Amino acid sequence: MIIVMERGATRADIDHVVQRLSDIGAEAHVSEGQLRTVIGAVGDRSAIQQLPWEAVPGVERAVPVLKPYKFVSRDHHATDTVIDVGGVPVGGEVVTVIAGPCAVESREQLFSAAAAIKEAGATILRGDAFKPRTSPYSFQGLGEKGLELLAEAREEFELPFIAEVVDPRHTELVASYADLIRIGTRNMANFPLLAEVGRQPKPVLLKRGFTATIEEWLNAAEYIYKEGNHAVILCERGIRTFETQTRNTLDISAVPVLKSLSHLPVIVDPSHSGGRRRLVTPLSLAGVAAGADGLMIDVHPAPETALVDGAQAILPDEFAALMEQVGRIATAIDRKI
Amino acid sequence: MIIVMERGATRADIDHVVQRLSDIGAEAHVSEGQLRTVIGAVGDRSAIQQLPWEAVPGVERAVPVLKPYKFVSRDHHATDTVIDVGGVPVGGEVVTVIAGPCAVESREQLFSAAAAIKEAGATILRGDAFKPRTSPYSFQGLGEKGLELLAEAREEFELPFIAEVVDPRHTELVASYADLIRIGTRNMANFPLLAEVGRQPKPVLLKRGFTATIEEWLNAAEYIYKEGNHAVILCERGIRTFETQTRNTLDISAVPVLKSLSHLPVIVDPSHSGGRRRLVTPLSLAGVAAGADGLMIDVHPAPETALVDGAQAILPDEFAALMEQVGRIATAIDRKI
Amino acid sequence: MIIVMERGATRADIDHVVQRLSDIGAEAHVSEGQLRTVIGAVGDRSAIQQLPWEAVPGVERAVPVLKPYKFVSRDHHATDTVIDVGGVPVGGEVVTVIAGPCAVESREQLFSAAAAIKEAGATILRGDAFKPRTSPYSFQGLGEKGLELLAEAREEFELPFIAEVVDPRHTELVASYADLIRIGTRNMANFPLLAEVGRQPKPVLLKRGFTATIEEWLNAAEYIYKEGNHAVILCERGIRTFETQTRNTLDISAVPVLKSLSHLPVIVDPSHSGGRRRLVTPLSLAGVAAGADGLMIDVHPAPETALVDGAQAILPDEFAALMEQVGRIATAIDRKI
Amino acid sequence: MIIVMERGATRADIDHVVQRLSDIGAEAHVSEGQLRTVIGAVGDRSAIQQLPWEAVPGVERAVPVLKPYKFVSRDHHATDTVIDVGGVPVGGEVVTVIAGPCAVESREQLFSAAAAIKEAGATILRGDAFKPRTSPYSFQGLGEKGLELLAEAREEFELPFIAEVVDPRHTELVASYADLIRIGTRNMANFPLLAEVGRQPKPVLLKRGFTATIEEWLNAAEYIYKEGNHAVILCERGIRTFETQTRNTLDISAVPVLKSLSHLPVIVDPSHSGGRRRLVTPLSLAGVAAGADGLMIDVHPAPETALVDGAQAILPDEFAALMEQVGRIATAIDRKI
Repeated sequence: MIIVMERGATRADIDHVVQRLSDIGAEAHVSEGQLRTVIGAVGDRSAIQQLPWEAVPGVERAVPVLKPYKFVSRDHHATDTVIDVGGVPVGGEVVTVIAGPCAVESREQLFSAAAAIKEAGATILRGDAFKPRTSPYSFQGLGEKGLELLAEAREEFELPFIAEVVDPRHTELVASYADLIRIGTRNMANFPLLAEVGRQPKPVLLKRGFTATIEEWLNAAEYIYKEGNHAVILCERGIRTFETQTRNTLDISAVPVLKSLSHLPVIVDPSHSGGRRRLVTPLSLAGVAAGADGLMIDVHPAPETALVDGAQAILPDEFAALMEQVGRIATAIDRKI
Repeated sequence: MIIVMERGATRADIDHVVQRLSDIGAEAHVSEGQLRTVIGAVGDRSAIQQLPWEAVPGVERAVPVLKPYKFVSRDHHATDTVIDVGGVPVGGEVVTVIAGPCAVESREQLFSAAAAIKEAGATILRGDAFKPRTSPYSFQGLGEKGLELLAEAREEFELPFIAEVVDPRHTELVASYADLIRIGTRNMANFPLLAEVGRQPKPVLLKRGFTATIEEWLNAAEYIYKEGNHAVILCERGIRTFETQTRNTLDISAVPVLKSLSHLPVIVDPSHSGGRRRLVTPLSLAGVAAGADGLMIDVHPAPETALVDGAQAILPDEFAALMEQVGRIATAIDRKI
Repeated sequence: MIIVMERGATRADIDHVVQRLSDIGAEAHVSEGQLRTVIGAVGDRSAIQQLPWEAVPGVERAVPVLKPYKFVSRDHHATDTVIDVGGVPVGGEVVTVIAGPCAVESREQLFSAAAAIKEAGATILRGDAFKPRTSPYSFQGLGEKGLELLAEAREEFELPFIAEVVDPRHTELVASYADLIRIGTRNMANFPLLAEVGRQPKPVLLKRGFTATIEEWLNAAEYIYKEGNHAVILCERGIRTFETQTRNTLDISAVPVLKSLSHLPVIVDPSHSGGRRRLVTPLSLAGVAAGADGLMIDVHPAPETALVDGAQAILPDEFAALMEQVGRIATAIDRKI
Repeated sequence: MIIVMERGATRADIDHVVQRLSDIGAEAHVSEGQLRTVIGAVGDRSAIQQLPWEAVPGVERAVPVLKPYKFVSRDHHATDTVIDVGGVPVGGEVVTVIAGPCAVESREQLFSAAAAIKEAGATILRGDAFKPRTSPYSFQGLGEKGLELLAEAREEFELPFIAEVVDPRHTELVASYADLIRIGTRNMANFPLLAEVGRQPKPVLLKRGFTATIEEWLNAAEYIYKEGNHAVILCERGIRTFETQTRNTLDISAVPVLKSLSHLPVIVDPSHSGGRRRLVTPLSLAGVAAGADGLMIDVHPAPETALVDGAQAILPDEFAALMEQVGRIATAIDRKI
């Protein structure tokens, strides 16, 4: 931690900061410039970071040197983590494609989508049974019935599946069915829910909060990791900006930034970021080219009847064409699908 | 809903949209311009808004005319709502001031703050027992012990209190102690939690998500209202922007905007928006001048020892001076504290 | 400057940084922690800040301790600056109100507005002759003819006036007529234009870029100051955020933040920030309560015929009512209009 | 234009809107819903868009159906435009790579960079003689001397070059030397400058304002186009968001969005968006995969001595490796470099 003192800070103010560092067993390195005094604090990270430095008299601001997360950082684990999802690896050489409808609406809809994505080469099925919706008047999902249909589809098509959990009271239920538990963008900072999934024996896909910084996102991953669940996959899905031509702005830079800060696998969701069908293919190709370990794509047999997010779902034949192009990009960077 | 067709939309595309509107009992008003055809949809709001119009062939975009929320809007209820919090009114002529420590840390800390804010004229006590923290390594609150201390302070100082709930499994516990339940900024879109507090017999203070639009915020209030709890207070607490001199940017315009869109009372939190002690007074005065029905302010007897958010807590004597100034502004606009 | 080294930085990398500091006559204070080495650089601010530290091998990031601006900071000049605008003071005890139409459209429109704002107590007239417009198909102003009309109105109503300059080639022309030159939000980072107005003998009102940080804004003020023109007034006018209910989000916190960082006067434009007529009064009151030294308000005798920004212009009688309320708020904080 | 009336709008308010439309020769299509009346305006786009509808009594808001720009839209010109830059095409089958130092610092620095980028396969040289800098104390460029060096390098290496213009008074000077004139991000809304380059006989590369929406950007292109210069290239270079790990957030979605809205070529600047050397390659690959017609990349023989933006410049050998990878991605999508 670097503590920058105010211009008018007195000798007593400086001594007080040094004393408080000493009280917690940290060293203080004091540099006096002409206009400001700066104090470098060296010692136990947690102890130093938890004190409210900016409330201490004479302190202008405190700048952390170390990140608040530990286990999910490259500092802690230098090599890339590969996660097993019902037998399918995420991370490593392969670019893994997750696809399916945004929400499970019926057996027919789900099975039609599952057959199509299997045929085109996807290896994990998506489909939600519980949906967090902005308006209380929108469709909220089929609940456990949806999970049962997903489990049936898994048998039928030999595809592990991912499903979202939105309530800590449903965590065990979702974990008992799904191969991969999803934390959605609105729940990235739902700490009780993160703690619950951190205690489950299934891997977790953690979507970025659409207004979260990368550091907040890694802190959220740390919540899960700290509870004992080390199988965490990060999913970039677009952030809120002033631009209105797209639903959110895909932060493509997050892919290489995360690869540098963390050892966890990173995938890209081109469907929810753009919010438009015609953007799905270019954003998928960009994601893979930027180094993502996978994609998660909404595919629906009849988007204009979709109960959730139809505007961004692509048709099965569009998905097949996309997979062909993704394969070519993967090959160009020495990966494969 | 206004449906704008693409430039190349065919007669069949237009007829298909008209047919889909007809299927749900809505009327279509078709206007054909030189470059675009526009279709106005008139009929049942929910039925029209739930169809995925932007997934329908030939549709460029769909622009809602009506808001997705109903009960919390001025259209539904024209006069200002006044809410009773343990005998203290929020809304109406009085500017209500809520104050106290961010988190309950000890009996001594809480009682010292409570005595000071009572003395200075605040009428509701704040203090949290459960804290959602960005880092898993930060202090998470005293839990039920904190609620017990708050209940003791209520007796001692005759001040109703507000406390945050962060987990749907704790809703009844918090509601059994507190006079006013708070939904924090990170949980504004935690829909299961909103539904739970919507079923409690206590009023709810709903903080704005720091990245939520006003429309999303009113949708969240609607979730609570729809479950039967009509005692909802809105609290503006700053939004995330590119500016880094303040923790968040207080959206002062939200006060008059909400007064125009909704009948619910609106208060301002000048502590968490600015994140700096020296900003608390000017932002408080601005909030009251802009028409807010109250303020919620962090007061701590010793901010530099605070376990949560010390940088923004003001001292008891600073709070007393603030109350004096707030009283003068209130008088200037024909209100009182 | 604080230079944080990468985790893997070698002894040679550290020595290289120390050498480069030594080369420019600066001292290096090296603190070695367990995970990172931090180097504090003490010496000539400009020399240190201009080196591209983040391009030096082994450097993770460089954190400036001092601000890049000097003359406009409180460090340089501790007391509040008061600026004379054609005999009217801006800064100090008085809250100065600037009002008038967004653009000069005709003699009749301008004189009607000027008479009304004079009557209501405003002391500086606004009205533009050159308008920067987002679309090339919008009205661009009357040019020099507009300046002549403003000069006539000045005589008639004894009101100094402010006018915008948008092109460095027009700076002398505008300065020859106006009492106060305005740099609009789109030109805050137009450095050749800033340098030109920095050489004029008239005070300058510098609007915040609607996407500029406070630090960038003060850097822009420094450009003007550095050329020799020390009469700079800052005008907060709203920033771009994700919220769409208002045209921009008035950053009310900027008022106290600027008062702390700079000695220059600060005024608030409630018209362009909100973009809505009904927001003008509450935002004006909030601005004054937060400590602004003045307001700049669009007043138009017939907004629905306005050629520019009619949606936010208030009518003369609305302005008179606003002035009465502003006066009461000013009195409440021991100022006057 | 769609005009949505307020809930309480009277018959007279509606008739008044209809009358105003009639006055400008437009038709009004009135749809009366239960809660709101909506009026569709059909007629001359410019005439309708210029009236201040939101200032008209009883109007809640006005939603444009058509874009304010014309010539740069796909509606106006359906096929992709290819622009000739000193013999090098931009747009079409080839992915064009522009590279070189951010600023011209010396003959040696420029020629070293030019030799390297030529060798690696780039076809246009970049290097600036005039730099807009946030701080008045930073290096501002070599001026005309820099242009002379660029012209020499063009001869030596047979590479047309691009240079920025920041002042309308320098437009002819820059145009007399450069093959491609650049409008930088801070000048995207500098309308007098746009008008000047619109009258030059050289193509223009228009960078996106880092806080501009895509619609504002296309309006800026329209300013140039309307003056007679139809050779406009758009360059995405990152937008300002809340994320701080990168200097700006590359809006990769802008590439396919622009391809859909406009016929102009689109290139990506991976250097200024990320602001970090290690992000340049992944963002370049993502840009090409998303469909960009080219890249513009900062290359410097010794970044740690750069006078401008050294942190993001890559070394010549890094650039050569990047070109090899870009070539493979281009091939994968049936393009070439």
